Amino acid sequence: MKYTAHINIMPHKELLDPQGKAVSNSLHNLGLSQVHDVRIGKHVTLHLEAANEAEANSLTTEACKKLLANGVMESFEFSLTAN
Amino acid sequence: MKYTAHINIMPHKELLDPQGKAVSNSLHNLGLSQVHDVRIGKHVTLHLEAANEAEANSLTTEACKKLLANGVMESFEFSLTAN
Repeated sequence: MKYTAHINIMPHKELLDPQGKAVSNSLHNLGLSQVHDVRIGKHVTLHLEAANEAEANSLTTEACKKLLANGVMESFEFSLTAN
Repeated sequence: MKYTAHINIMPHKELLDPQGKAVSNSLHNLGLSQVHDVRIGKHVTLHLEAANEAEANSLTTEACKKLLANGVMESFEFSLTAN
């Protein structure tokens, strides 16, 4: 079966996110002072072939751990949809 | 009220995504040959104060259009949760 994985990779909550801080300041300068606590990470979508959802799950986890996310600084979460 | 916006910013479907292509090739080299069509974008979370969900919606759209997403190359979508 074919699955689509939607993966979010974000900096750990305990870590400073300088990119998010810069964007937050820029939004304030643009007049959007209601916005705060901006955090910026990556969104990855990928298609994969797997026998079932459990296999798709383990393949996606493997891809995240081996390549997509840096476990020291980032955490990941994902959802799978069957096509 | 306080809202959290979860924003996904992805390269337009019609555009090549060289970063995604590179990741796809690397995953194949790591033995994950079942994976294809990798696309990489940004995931942004932000907190905002708004009177109601409609206002939160328009503030988030404004932030995306003014700063977060480049309309020429990227499209965005978001969901809001009330805290």
